[in-house]
Amino acid sequence: MSSALPLPQSPTATSTAGHEFVLTVVCEDAPGIVHAVTGAIVEVGGNITESRQFESGATHRFYMRLQVRTSASAEEVEQALAPAIERFGLEHSIDEVGRPLRTLILGSTAKHCVNDLLFQTESGHLPIEVPLILANHPTLEKLAGFYEVPFEHLPTKGEGAKAAFEDRVREAVQEHDIELVVLARYMQILSPELCAELAGRCINIHHSFLPGFKGANPYRQAHARGVKQIGATAHFVTSDLDEGPIIEQEVLRVDHTRTPKELMAIGQDAEMRTLRQAVAWFAQSRVLLDGTRTIVFR
Amino acid sequence: MSSALPLPQSPTATSTAGHEFVLTVVCEDAPGIVHAVTGAIVEVGGNITESRQFESGATHRFYMRLQVRTSASAEEVEQALAPAIERFGLEHSIDEVGRPLRTLILGSTAKHCVNDLLFQTESGHLPIEVPLILANHPTLEKLAGFYEVPFEHLPTKGEGAKAAFEDRVREAVQEHDIELVVLARYMQILSPELCAELAGRCINIHHSFLPGFKGANPYRQAHARGVKQIGATAHFVTSDLDEGPIIEQEVLRVDHTRTPKELMAIGQDAEMRTLRQAVAWFAQSRVLLDGTRTIVFR
Amino acid sequence: MSSALPLPQSPTATSTAGHEFVLTVVCEDAPGIVHAVTGAIVEVGGNITESRQFESGATHRFYMRLQVRTSASAEEVEQALAPAIERFGLEHSIDEVGRPLRTLILGSTAKHCVNDLLFQTESGHLPIEVPLILANHPTLEKLAGFYEVPFEHLPTKGEGAKAAFEDRVREAVQEHDIELVVLARYMQILSPELCAELAGRCINIHHSFLPGFKGANPYRQAHARGVKQIGATAHFVTSDLDEGPIIEQEVLRVDHTRTPKELMAIGQDAEMRTLRQAVAWFAQSRVLLDGTRTIVFR
Amino acid sequence: MSSALPLPQSPTATSTAGHEFVLTVVCEDAPGIVHAVTGAIVEVGGNITESRQFESGATHRFYMRLQVRTSASAEEVEQALAPAIERFGLEHSIDEVGRPLRTLILGSTAKHCVNDLLFQTESGHLPIEVPLILANHPTLEKLAGFYEVPFEHLPTKGEGAKAAFEDRVREAVQEHDIELVVLARYMQILSPELCAELAGRCINIHHSFLPGFKGANPYRQAHARGVKQIGATAHFVTSDLDEGPIIEQEVLRVDHTRTPKELMAIGQDAEMRTLRQAVAWFAQSRVLLDGTRTIVFR
Repeated sequence: MSSALPLPQSPTATSTAGHEFVLTVVCEDAPGIVHAVTGAIVEVGGNITESRQFESGATHRFYMRLQVRTSASAEEVEQALAPAIERFGLEHSIDEVGRPLRTLILGSTAKHCVNDLLFQTESGHLPIEVPLILANHPTLEKLAGFYEVPFEHLPTKGEGAKAAFEDRVREAVQEHDIELVVLARYMQILSPELCAELAGRCINIHHSFLPGFKGANPYRQAHARGVKQIGATAHFVTSDLDEGPIIEQEVLRVDHTRTPKELMAIGQDAEMRTLRQAVAWFAQSRVLLDGTRTIVFR
Repeated sequence: MSSALPLPQSPTATSTAGHEFVLTVVCEDAPGIVHAVTGAIVEVGGNITESRQFESGATHRFYMRLQVRTSASAEEVEQALAPAIERFGLEHSIDEVGRPLRTLILGSTAKHCVNDLLFQTESGHLPIEVPLILANHPTLEKLAGFYEVPFEHLPTKGEGAKAAFEDRVREAVQEHDIELVVLARYMQILSPELCAELAGRCINIHHSFLPGFKGANPYRQAHARGVKQIGATAHFVTSDLDEGPIIEQEVLRVDHTRTPKELMAIGQDAEMRTLRQAVAWFAQSRVLLDGTRTIVFR
Repeated sequence: MSSALPLPQSPTATSTAGHEFVLTVVCEDAPGIVHAVTGAIVEVGGNITESRQFESGATHRFYMRLQVRTSASAEEVEQALAPAIERFGLEHSIDEVGRPLRTLILGSTAKHCVNDLLFQTESGHLPIEVPLILANHPTLEKLAGFYEVPFEHLPTKGEGAKAAFEDRVREAVQEHDIELVVLARYMQILSPELCAELAGRCINIHHSFLPGFKGANPYRQAHARGVKQIGATAHFVTSDLDEGPIIEQEVLRVDHTRTPKELMAIGQDAEMRTLRQAVAWFAQSRVLLDGTRTIVFR
Repeated sequence: MSSALPLPQSPTATSTAGHEFVLTVVCEDAPGIVHAVTGAIVEVGGNITESRQFESGATHRFYMRLQVRTSASAEEVEQALAPAIERFGLEHSIDEVGRPLRTLILGSTAKHCVNDLLFQTESGHLPIEVPLILANHPTLEKLAGFYEVPFEHLPTKGEGAKAAFEDRVREAVQEHDIELVVLARYMQILSPELCAELAGRCINIHHSFLPGFKGANPYRQAHARGVKQIGATAHFVTSDLDEGPIIEQEVLRVDHTRTPKELMAIGQDAEMRTLRQAVAWFAQSRVLLDGTRTIVFR
C-alpha cells in the first residue's frame, strides 16, 4: 500500500505464530531513521529478510520497505514502532506478506487484462482477491463467472448514468473495504472527485507508451508515424488525464509490416503484462509515491 | 540508398567477375512487377540471394529490395531492367553489396556516437567510408585523428557562422560525392533549405524516445516524470523538427534509483547503438521512404 | 505448413471471389525460380502482397513465401504453378491466408499455455481451430469447457497407458485432419515412432532457454547457477529430446532476489508467449525447415 | 569489492570534509545486524542514502550494501563498526563512493571490449582507473596509446611463455595494488593457481549465453543450431572453466538471415556492454559472492 493503512483484518496478521510482515515507511529524510526502525524490529525479535530504501533527491523524502520475520503480532510491531513514528513523523504501513489485496476491477468490453488478472490470481502468482468486477458492458460476465468472481453491469450511457456508476464504485469500495481499484481497460474518464477519493490506490493501464501517443487509437497513430516500438504504461489515476505517476512500462518492437490489427494484438499483450506487473508490485507494497514519480522497490 | 543513384564508380561494380548487387525498386503497386524485374535478373543470369518486398496499404506503393549474384555488370543489369523501369515507372537503385557508403559526419562535442561509428567502421561491421568529419567544436579532432579521418572545425556561433557552416556542408557533399549525412549529436537545427537538399539522405539521432520527450534535456524530463523506459530514435531529417520518418528506435529499462547522470549514460548507449543500426541499414539500402514512414527491410 | 500439403478443404479456398493465398516453395537453389513462380502468379492475374525468400548457405536450398491476392481458385494457382513445380522440383504448399489451422493440443496439468492459446484464438489473434484437447490429467477440463473445446482425459500412467494415449493421438490426427500438434506443457516424451510420424508439424514448448538447462527443474537449476536471464524455447519435436529445430525463443531478466517460485511465474509467462508466437507463425506458413534449423519468415 | 579490503589509500577517503562511503557487509544471518550496523552509522552522524540487503535462502548468509553520507573519516566509521564486526563476525569493506577501482586489463587481439572500457572510463561513466593493459599480442597498443594507458605485450606462445605471462600478471597486481583483473577477450585459460589467487576479483566475458554454447566458435554453433537469441555472459573466473558465478548476461534477438559474421558483430556488441556493466557494478561494490551465485545490488 502506498500510504498508512488500517491493520489487516485477516486472522493471520494477529496470529502469534512465526510469520512475515512488510513494513513501509515514508518521511522527511533525516539521520537515524533506519536505526530507530530496526531498533523496533530487534525489540520484537524480528529478522529482516528484505530491505530497500531510497532518499529522493527530488523531494528530500525518505522511503523504506522492510520484510520482517517475527513471532510478534502486527499490534506488537506497531507498538514497538511508536517512538520512531512520533520522532520522525513516519507515514507507515504494516501488513502480512502475501495477504491478498482487496481489489475492485472496473472493466468495459476488452477481455485481455481481466482474463490475465484473474488467471494469474487463480494461479497463485498475483496476491489479490477480487470481490467484484464492475463494468459498463455485459461482455465480461461469462469470464467473471468462470473464475467465480461477482460481476455487475451498470451502463455509463444516458443521463446521470456515469454519476450512478461512480456512486456504485464508492459504495463497493466501502462495502468490500477495497484497497486497490484497477481500471482494466475501463475506457471511461473518472470524475475529478473520484480521482481525488481514490488517489494513490487506483491504477490505470494506458494503451500506449507514455509520454507519446495519448488519447484514442494510439495503434493507428503509431502505425501512421511508423514507430519501431510500441508499449503500454501503468500509472496511478489522477484528475490530470494520462499524466499520473508511472508505475510500469513495457515496449515491444514492431516494424512496417504490422497492420493496425497486429499492433493491437501486440499492444494488448504489453497492456496485460504491464498492468499485471504494476498490480503485483502494488499488492506487495513495493510502490510508493514520490511527488509525481513512483518509487518501485522491485 | 533510398532513391535512384548514379552507378557506383568503384571498379568492382563494373567488373565482370561474379559479384553481388543490391537492387531497390519503388513504384505504384500493380500486378506483374516482380515477374518483370525477376525476368531481367534471369536475362543477366542472376541468382536472387535475398528478397524483400512490401505493398503499402497507406500509400498503395510497392517496395522491393533484391540481392542478386551475377557475373553481369551494373550496366548490363541496368539495361535488362530498362523495359520494366519504363513500363512500371520504377524508381530504382542498383549498387554493389557491401560497397562502403560515402558518409559525411556532422558533430559537436559529444564523442560517443562518432566513436562508435568510427570503431564499427574500422572493425568492418559498418559499410561506410567517412571522408570528413565536420564539427562546430574542436572536441572530436583527436578522435578523428586516431581513426585517420579528416576533421574540420567550423564554429556556428556568431553572425553568419551557421550559414557558413551549412555552405561548407554543401561543398563537402559535392566534393566527396556524399551519399549520407549523419548528424552524430550535432545539436544544431539545420535550415529548412538544407533539410530539403538532403531529404532522404540525412539521418539524425534524437536523444530520447519519440514521440515523447522532445527538445532539450529529455533525461531530466524523463527523471522528473519517473518513466521506466528511456530510449533513442534515429530518423530522417526534415524541416519539421524531430518529426522526420523514424528508422530505428531502442528503449532501455530504468528505475527511480537512476540519477539524471546515469540516465544520460544509459541514453548515450541507446543513442550510439540506434544510430549505428540506422546507418548500417541505410548503407545496405534497407531503408525506403513510404510517405511519413520508413520501410526497413531488415 | 512446412511441407507440401493437400489443398485445404475449407470452402473459401475454392471460392472464386477475390481472396488471398499464401504460397510456400522449397527446392534446390537455382536461377530463375522466382521468375517462374511469379510468372504463374501473373498468369492467374495475381498480385503479390507480401514476399520473403531465403537461400540457405548451409543447405544450398531455396525458400520462398508469397502472399498473393487473386480471384483465381487454389486449383487454378496450382495448375499455373505446375511447370515450375516440375522444372525445379518444388516442394510447395498453397493455402488461404488466415484459414484457421486444425490444431490438436496435448496437455497435462499446467494451465497457462492452454489458457493463452484458447484466449488468443477466441480473441481472433491466433489463426487456429482446436477440435480437441487431449490430456493425461483432468485438470484442463473446466478451462476447455469454458472455451467450448472438446476435452478428453486419458491417463499415461500404468502398463500400456502411454501407448494407448499415443494411439489416441494418431486417431485424433486422422479423425480431425490435424495439421499441427502442440505440446502445451504435456510433460511426456513422445515415442520415436510418433515423433517421426508428426515430424515438422509437432511443436513443443521447452520450459527454459535452449541450449542450456535441459531436463527437469530448469528454474531450480537456474536459481542455483544464479543466471540473470531465463527464458523459453519453442521447437519442433524430434526423437532427439530437446534438440529439435528452434522456432522461437524468449528471455526475461531476473536477479538474485527471485525465488524459484517467482522464476517459475516469470518463466511461465515466457513459455506461453513463446509458444503462442511459434504457433502463430506456423499457422501463417512462416516456418520452414532448413535441415536442423528453421527459416522463420516473420 | 566482494570481500574485506584494505582502506583505500586515496587522500579523499581520509578527508574529513562531507563525503559518501559505500559499506558492504557479509555474515551468517542473525537478528540485529542491521540495527547494530546502522547504530554505528548514527554514531558517526552518517545519513544512509542507499541501502540494499539480502538474506540468502541458499547459504543462510546475510548481505548488505549501504551508501552513507558523513563528515567522518573511513577510520572513524571503521572504529564505530568494530563492535558489530566482532559480534557478528562481519566480512566488510568500506570505500569512497566513486573512487576509481585500480583495474588491470588482460587482452589479446580483439579490440571491442577494451575500446569500450577505455571510452566509458574517459567519459566518466565507468569508475575505474587502468594503470596497465597486458596483452599476448601487440594489436591493442595503438588503442591503449590513444587513451594514454600503459601497454605491455608479452607473448603466450612458446615454452614457459604462459607461466611468464602469469608471473607478470602477479607482479603487476602487486606493483599497482590492483583490485580487479578484467579478461577483455584475453582468450587464454588461466592456471588454477592464478584463478585461486585472483578469486573474486577477476572477471571474464564469455562470448555467448551460458549455460549454452561453451568453448570455441559459439557464433558458428549458434548459427548451425538456428537459435533465435544470442548473448554474452560476464562471470567471475574460477578454475572450473566457464562455470564461475555469473555477474551479468545479455541476449539479443537474431534470425536465420544472419551470417556467422553478423552474429559475431551482434555478439561483440553484447560482449562489450555486458562486460562494461559487470565491471561497473563490481567497481561500485554492488557484486557480492553467495557461494556459486552472485548477489548484484543494482
